[in-house]
Amino acid sequence: MKRFEDLSPSLRCIMTPGPVEVDPRVLRAMSYPVLGQFDPEFTDIMNETMGMLRELFATNNQWAFPVDGTSRSGIEAAMVSLIAPGDRVLIPIYGRFGHLLHEIAERCGAEVHTIETEWGTVFAQEEIIAEMRRVKPHVVAMVHGETSTGRLQPLEGIGQACREMDALLIVDAVATIGGVPVETDAWQLDAVIGGTQKCLSVPSGMAPITYNKRAEDKIMSRKRVERGLRTADAGDEDIAVVRSNYFDLGMLQDYWSPLRLNHHTEMTSMLYALREGLRLVLEEGLEARFARHRLHERALVAGIEAMGLQLYGDPDCKMPMVTCIVIPDGVDGESVRSMLLDSFGIEIASSFGPLKGKIWRIGTMGFSCRGNNVLRVLGALEAALLRHAHPLPAGLGVQAALDIYEQK
Amino acid sequence: MKRFEDLSPSLRCIMTPGPVEVDPRVLRAMSYPVLGQFDPEFTDIMNETMGMLRELFATNNQWAFPVDGTSRSGIEAAMVSLIAPGDRVLIPIYGRFGHLLHEIAERCGAEVHTIETEWGTVFAQEEIIAEMRRVKPHVVAMVHGETSTGRLQPLEGIGQACREMDALLIVDAVATIGGVPVETDAWQLDAVIGGTQKCLSVPSGMAPITYNKRAEDKIMSRKRVERGLRTADAGDEDIAVVRSNYFDLGMLQDYWSPLRLNHHTEMTSMLYALREGLRLVLEEGLEARFARHRLHERALVAGIEAMGLQLYGDPDCKMPMVTCIVIPDGVDGESVRSMLLDSFGIEIASSFGPLKGKIWRIGTMGFSCRGNNVLRVLGALEAALLRHAHPLPAGLGVQAALDIYEQK
Repeated sequence: MKRFEDLSPSLRCIMTPGPVEVDPRVLRAMSYPVLGQFDPEFTDIMNETMGMLRELFATNNQWAFPVDGTSRSGIEAAMVSLIAPGDRVLIPIYGRFGHLLHEIAERCGAEVHTIETEWGTVFAQEEIIAEMRRVKPHVVAMVHGETSTGRLQPLEGIGQACREMDALLIVDAVATIGGVPVETDAWQLDAVIGGTQKCLSVPSGMAPITYNKRAEDKIMSRKRVERGLRTADAGDEDIAVVRSNYFDLGMLQDYWSPLRLNHHTEMTSMLYALREGLRLVLEEGLEARFARHRLHERALVAGIEAMGLQLYGDPDCKMPMVTCIVIPDGVDGESVRSMLLDSFGIEIASSFGPLKGKIWRIGTMGFSCRGNNVLRVLGALEAALLRHAHPLPAGLGVQAALDIYEQK
Repeated sequence: MKRFEDLSPSLRCIMTPGPVEVDPRVLRAMSYPVLGQFDPEFTDIMNETMGMLRELFATNNQWAFPVDGTSRSGIEAAMVSLIAPGDRVLIPIYGRFGHLLHEIAERCGAEVHTIETEWGTVFAQEEIIAEMRRVKPHVVAMVHGETSTGRLQPLEGIGQACREMDALLIVDAVATIGGVPVETDAWQLDAVIGGTQKCLSVPSGMAPITYNKRAEDKIMSRKRVERGLRTADAGDEDIAVVRSNYFDLGMLQDYWSPLRLNHHTEMTSMLYALREGLRLVLEEGLEARFARHRLHERALVAGIEAMGLQLYGDPDCKMPMVTCIVIPDGVDGESVRSMLLDSFGIEIASSFGPLKGKIWRIGTMGFSCRGNNVLRVLGALEAALLRHAHPLPAGLGVQAALDIYEQK
């Protein structure tokens, strides 16, 4: 029987749109001994985490807690809890993750309506609102930051339109939370899902969500007491009970409330990590953190342009934390990526579907979003391109980024 | 704005049926820097973990990997993938977690049939087989070790009966895996779900599962290529597509296969923890580990009986890793539990539903299953009971356990 070696992962410079590098303080938090799930010390940690999540989501919502799974578990929890079978759902799609929302909504039994716009752009909000008038959706679900194309969709007007038309708005902010403003209350978003392994720089494994009273009302209308605890079945037939037990937000909120109704066993070590990651975010301050993401984006973009490379997509809606580069003609994009990883210890990303083989994506997210990382990736990309016989003016990329940092 | 303190959880002696104490080697594994999800070093770790899970489950199945969520996420993944809406599902119930299976099956759209037996006992296998003949289920789902009552259900004959009647057998082995034999292949179990935070002593957050070719055939019959990748919709209407995206085992197996089709972002740090936990299990050896669980059970039971306390439930089907004690008349069970936690730093459990306030449950699972822990909990329980004016022969409990250890 083969015996496996001690774990000893290489130290990587991770410049992808997630998962990204993790602050050593967060890694250390996971190495603390565990507490029992109903230990008062542990339930205090749960409550503290909820408090910090409210700040992160810029909300006064009562409910802000992690779903125990990777980012798409939070998306599915929001959708399966808020979309009853037969509901009309409108999904504006401008990249791969919009298709994912479509996929999930369909499996929830929704009547799905989609509109699509060209990859590399986003929607004018009026286009979405006009389609809402036509479709009269119960739910609108959309992506805030589409990492597949590196675009950021403005949302301010959509929330208000949803109120006026009595629709619920679910927003996938997995890639944007902690990197650019996500104004849950000000933009009137009804349910928002964040990711851990991107701008929060906590390992993949939890999906922080928040939702407001409008969303909760729909959840409560579908709620049923768990079998074995309830006293009678009368009337249950009329309720569109949530099709999942694990993702039923009505049950999750009972577990996160003072009731502490047992549902799953909270992920102890992941919660330690999330709590420490949120402390780091709030210690830095949200505004300062957003400014840091913009600064390193400017330096990276200046360097890329100085190297004579072309950026992909409409610059007016570019995500600060994802920079997409058109792979130059005649260059094997995957060969360059492999060289970056194998020789330089740096990971950058390719993309999906129609963009596969067409663009590279460089992430500047959370803890990975640092000046020394930006300079390192620019220098290494230059060297790898020269090694692939792609002509470019040596030295200019790093110098252009240094110029930005000196102006600061 | 309130600022939160450094994380500093107390060191607990956790003697519950989970979550339990975690080996420092596993805690250390989580503190390693993360790798990207498609980094060849990381996919190697994924493959190594699959290899070790096959040994743990005593199977030659191709598929053995963790579902990214807590234990019940693995249960839901197996059920939602293997139960099509309208399928007849038979669920034998002998405690709280049987009711959970009923709840989940119902939400999958199953036609659920249940049989129940008194809590504290299990079924004769013939009872279940007789009911299978009557119901002709597509799926039988049952709990192997029911922590709510501390009972262990024999399964050897059920798997064979399911083959004969062309039913699939799903087994919740969350509490038993790594503590008693779970013979996936020998017992002909079609899908088995294990837990991390119990006898594997890895923090809550993943649910290892395995399933065989019979199960895979059903999964494949319900499979649809993800929207955005597939070429046509033709024929899809005939397929009972799995109602969840996150829990669709057909998609998960593509991600865990050499195809590496992107689904979620694997939980990096939790996978490090699971890999290290599995190494510890296999280094100890499964047989030695099972023997260790039986030894410490014997010592604990001897101590409890020497103290004059009464065990709950049918001794013939007792789980070695859970010992249920009848709370003596006149003793406030919750007050004793609080004293154990607050004064002694020891956590034991209460129970659910009809057993709430009636029994205590002491777990001897995985890393928590150690002689010094058993002696510690016996000494502290004696002291707490004396402090609650419950008369008992002081000193005898610990001595009885020491006797067992000296006979060894």
